[in-house]
Amino acid sequence: MNCKDTAALLKGWDNILVLSHASPDGDTLGSACALLRGLISMGKQVDFRCGDEIPPKFQYLFEGLSLGGFTPEKTSSVHIMSVDVADTVLLGKLQEIYQDKIELAIDHHESHKNFAPHRWVEPNSAATAEMIWLLLKELGVTPDKQIAECIYTGITTDTGCLRYQNATPRTYRIAAETIEAGADAAEINRLMWETKTRAQMEAERKILDTMEYFCGGKCAMIRIPQSILRETGATESDVEGTASLPRQIEGVKIGVTVKEKEDGTVKISLRTSPPVNAAEICGEFGGGGHAGAAGCSFPGLSLEEAAEKMKEACRRYLEKSLSK
Amino acid sequence: MNCKDTAALLKGWDNILVLSHASPDGDTLGSACALLRGLISMGKQVDFRCGDEIPPKFQYLFEGLSLGGFTPEKTSSVHIMSVDVADTVLLGKLQEIYQDKIELAIDHHESHKNFAPHRWVEPNSAATAEMIWLLLKELGVTPDKQIAECIYTGITTDTGCLRYQNATPRTYRIAAETIEAGADAAEINRLMWETKTRAQMEAERKILDTMEYFCGGKCAMIRIPQSILRETGATESDVEGTASLPRQIEGVKIGVTVKEKEDGTVKISLRTSPPVNAAEICGEFGGGGHAGAAGCSFPGLSLEEAAEKMKEACRRYLEKSLSK
Repeated sequence: MNCKDTAALLKGWDNILVLSHASPDGDTLGSACALLRGLISMGKQVDFRCGDEIPPKFQYLFEGLSLGGFTPEKTSSVHIMSVDVADTVLLGKLQEIYQDKIELAIDHHESHKNFAPHRWVEPNSAATAEMIWLLLKELGVTPDKQIAECIYTGITTDTGCLRYQNATPRTYRIAAETIEAGADAAEINRLMWETKTRAQMEAERKILDTMEYFCGGKCAMIRIPQSILRETGATESDVEGTASLPRQIEGVKIGVTVKEKEDGTVKISLRTSPPVNAAEICGEFGGGGHAGAAGCSFPGLSLEEAAEKMKEACRRYLEKSLSK
Repeated sequence: MNCKDTAALLKGWDNILVLSHASPDGDTLGSACALLRGLISMGKQVDFRCGDEIPPKFQYLFEGLSLGGFTPEKTSSVHIMSVDVADTVLLGKLQEIYQDKIELAIDHHESHKNFAPHRWVEPNSAATAEMIWLLLKELGVTPDKQIAECIYTGITTDTGCLRYQNATPRTYRIAAETIEAGADAAEINRLMWETKTRAQMEAERKILDTMEYFCGGKCAMIRIPQSILRETGATESDVEGTASLPRQIEGVKIGVTVKEKEDGTVKISLRTSPPVNAAEICGEFGGGGHAGAAGCSFPGLSLEEAAEKMKEACRRYLEKSLSK
């Protein structure tokens, strides 16, 4: 299906339940909230479900949004759809209830599993929110400030503030339109990108303290033992962003993050610069990924043992590629 | 003057010398290099001067750019113009030579001093590079990949990667056009925003170690003694960005940076969230600035003495505003 077909389908529906993926981010929530608002303005009855709680930083997306009007579980004429969900397993706790009932999926993931009979999937779209913006226009909805802010949130979330390769000219133009429709882009970016909890800042500080260089500065490694999370109160997702830090250092070709999970398993995240192939190094230990970002696990090894193994692997890789 | 007038003026000139401001950034250099490339494509003779050396990270802007063709100091028919220069004092070492000879100024600073007889100044433009893009179109230049990358560099530099309040819908649309013209926006953003020297990373780590909270977490302070710069080899400009860190922490209303300058003077940078007025707090010590960002100096005081004075001032301010 394309945007037009999707709009035609939605026009015929009266009671619509929109689903977001679990561990919700700004794109799945921004897309859902923008669509819900648009559908309400068309006189539809809508409701929303997500398998996890909405993080406080995304509460503004729901402001003034009046959900309900029907009980999805009891109304037989309810149409169920998902936004930004690549696979029903990503519905989390909601998977069992809804996996066989989703009629329409709108998504931008290349890895989209065709779980819904009707689907509009655009892997070239940087964010699902981009597609929702086009859909709302097709539906004849005039976007207000709140819809515009939901869409901008989705776009900035999935493009790293318009920074990544996936941001296309269309992405920039839709962002421009959302600002014209009233979105306070600067404030949204401040909320999304410049606000850290104290625990997060403390954890980052302690993680930076572990920075270690090897192979003459071509490699840098940070360690994230559980003790840092315990001492600071930071969560695993709080420290996710730190994996990009070692590779940001000038001259570093291989940035390694050695993280101890709650169950004691040690996980490695590798970030590399060309021509180093991260997936090749991690593949040695049964892991995988892309050329620039890959990962692997070391069940049974301590954090220090895993760190040593990775250092050796990086050294070997660099020696081999230098001798070529 | 407007864009059209500026284009008409330039069309009549054959030998053109373009000046950037000293301590050059991505906007003054991106604007200059895009314009120089466009003028060359029109068959003009061009040259370029900057009062300071071009930082290595901006060398790509000059790649393949053939300057010279005349000696500006010896050719009488040379027309001299400046881009992104708000005041001739910002020409640095070049001020004396050129301050009275600039015929045309293209700039976007609100504080622009009218030093040139011909000038096109647009304070609503997020970057001078935005204006240069429009100018090149007006001149009939078809922008190639290199021109597009110079323009994108100027835009991302002055908008903090499209993040700040100054980025308008026009900014986003011009960015979209540069990508269509071949600019590798993601790579430019990586170079501009995600690359740190080892010294810089080390200095940031040590600076984060000094983070101190007071007033029940409403205030956070970092200290930058000269010893951190000495130990790590970082420069003052390497650590400029750290001033924004304390205020980024959730709950922090006043973020304080206490920095010891090379001559021993202690400088304070304050970043605040509404309703706290940074300029009011710094004004107490003869400093000033804006509501959200201000500064002041403490000549004669040690870093610790200045830090204590600021803590007291922050406490007093918060007590006063709470009692209102």
